[in-house]
Amino acid sequence: MKYIFNEQIIDHEKALIHVSDLTLLRAYGVFDFFRLVNLQPLFFNDHLDRFFNSAQSLRLKCPLDRDKLKSMILELISTNQIQNSGIRIILTGGESHSGYSIGKPTLIVINEPINPLPKSHFSKGVKLICYEYLRDIPEVKTINYLMGIYKMPEIQAKGALDLLYHWNSKISELTRSNFFIVDQDDKIITPGNGILKGVNRKHVLHIAKTKYEVEERDLFMKELVNAKEAFITGTTKKVMPVFQIDDLIIGNGKPGPVTIELQTMFEKYVVEFLGSVQI
Amino acid sequence: MKYIFNEQIIDHEKALIHVSDLTLLRAYGVFDFFRLVNLQPLFFNDHLDRFFNSAQSLRLKCPLDRDKLKSMILELISTNQIQNSGIRIILTGGESHSGYSIGKPTLIVINEPINPLPKSHFSKGVKLICYEYLRDIPEVKTINYLMGIYKMPEIQAKGALDLLYHWNSKISELTRSNFFIVDQDDKIITPGNGILKGVNRKHVLHIAKTKYEVEERDLFMKELVNAKEAFITGTTKKVMPVFQIDDLIIGNGKPGPVTIELQTMFEKYVVEFLGSVQI
Repeated sequence: MKYIFNEQIIDHEKALIHVSDLTLLRAYGVFDFFRLVNLQPLFFNDHLDRFFNSAQSLRLKCPLDRDKLKSMILELISTNQIQNSGIRIILTGGESHSGYSIGKPTLIVINEPINPLPKSHFSKGVKLICYEYLRDIPEVKTINYLMGIYKMPEIQAKGALDLLYHWNSKISELTRSNFFIVDQDDKIITPGNGILKGVNRKHVLHIAKTKYEVEERDLFMKELVNAKEAFITGTTKKVMPVFQIDDLIIGNGKPGPVTIELQTMFEKYVVEFLGSVQI
Repeated sequence: MKYIFNEQIIDHEKALIHVSDLTLLRAYGVFDFFRLVNLQPLFFNDHLDRFFNSAQSLRLKCPLDRDKLKSMILELISTNQIQNSGIRIILTGGESHSGYSIGKPTLIVINEPINPLPKSHFSKGVKLICYEYLRDIPEVKTINYLMGIYKMPEIQAKGALDLLYHWNSKISELTRSNFFIVDQDDKIITPGNGILKGVNRKHVLHIAKTKYEVEERDLFMKELVNAKEAFITGTTKKVMPVFQIDDLIIGNGKPGPVTIELQTMFEKYVVEFLGSVQI
């Protein structure tokens, strides 16, 4: 398997980073991740936009410009030919002499197989656990997923998929997904601030607006009890129903009609999107 | 220069980590750091205790047991012979096949020169900037220093040393130091919870208690206005006066008598400690 390492395509075993890199010393780095559908990158431009925005926020200069990165990723995909895979773009903080200052970032692009999530996650839904937490610089896709991994034994013991973060009575997001509810009037509500704005969130909102009233705004914890439905979005989660949050059963504990319709609409949209897009 | 890499002593250039390590992918890792005085590790046992506690909290198994790690670090110091240096012990999350599960951790021990801080930091003190933030799992020494580095341009533009974190009206700690005030009655107060309990904090508290009343408790933001003195502790900061926090001048803007006395007591204590300690 091949990876991109700065300006080269290399064997994946050679993608090595020195321990003095600020990502290893200080967790200072950014990434992005998207999936391939029939070897075609899904929402490629959105993910590139977000990646370069994240890098800029953290003052990290990517060794490749956008056009060059784009063409090299397409070359990597074509070389590897890995069906059901994703692309992870990582930009490190660079080797730091002081152990605290930013160095010259290293770019690594990984083409990795995606293990499919259980089908029941999509057909029956998933359970979430509430946790009071605010991600660092939430709008930037940093590598910091410490809390989600740290809490994994508790998450798994409770039969849940992930944490649902909240802060100051407001719901923000999951460790790796965005969150939505459907209220009693079939209005779709999703947190509008203090979150990582997911690319799949954007496209799901786009299709949802064609049929439903949609609000991006502060979503309060107490609103959960009035939710008829809840779902999450993400690169591998697509549109995934939520049937339970802590001890609260959402609706009748089964995926609701709005969520199911959005799942169907999203699948159709992805096919049309990939058919129409100019890479 | 030599480093420890798992069970071996290697040339520092060879301390390379594969990009699939959970520390690079997900910021999941721990470390510790201490300084050498005449090549003798200062507060060695305290730092080893904290390192193994941090590792255990994050479910990371160190490839060396405590005795073996201790003897290899002494061998490393003896081999390198670097005056004015420190030891950084890093334990990574290990190579992760899923990109989210913990792998087999890699241990790296770095022996790095310490650039001395400006003498005026100790004689005149430093300025801090308040910032509302709660560190992830504050009692564990994870590698996450993202916020401190992210805010560095703002910190430097204001002529400050670091951020003073607070949450829910309570002061916690700095990015890399513990915080203390001296109140109008010469009582020394330092936050007691929700912080990384610094090794230098512990020893400074020990000597402070021989002469002053000391409280480890919640310290509220509003108490700053009544502080006669403020100081910070840390491995390289030792006991460092704080003369200003945002726009608030502490005392008369100069290091106060309690802080100066603790600086003197701490220097003397370190010499005595190293003379008496059994490695």
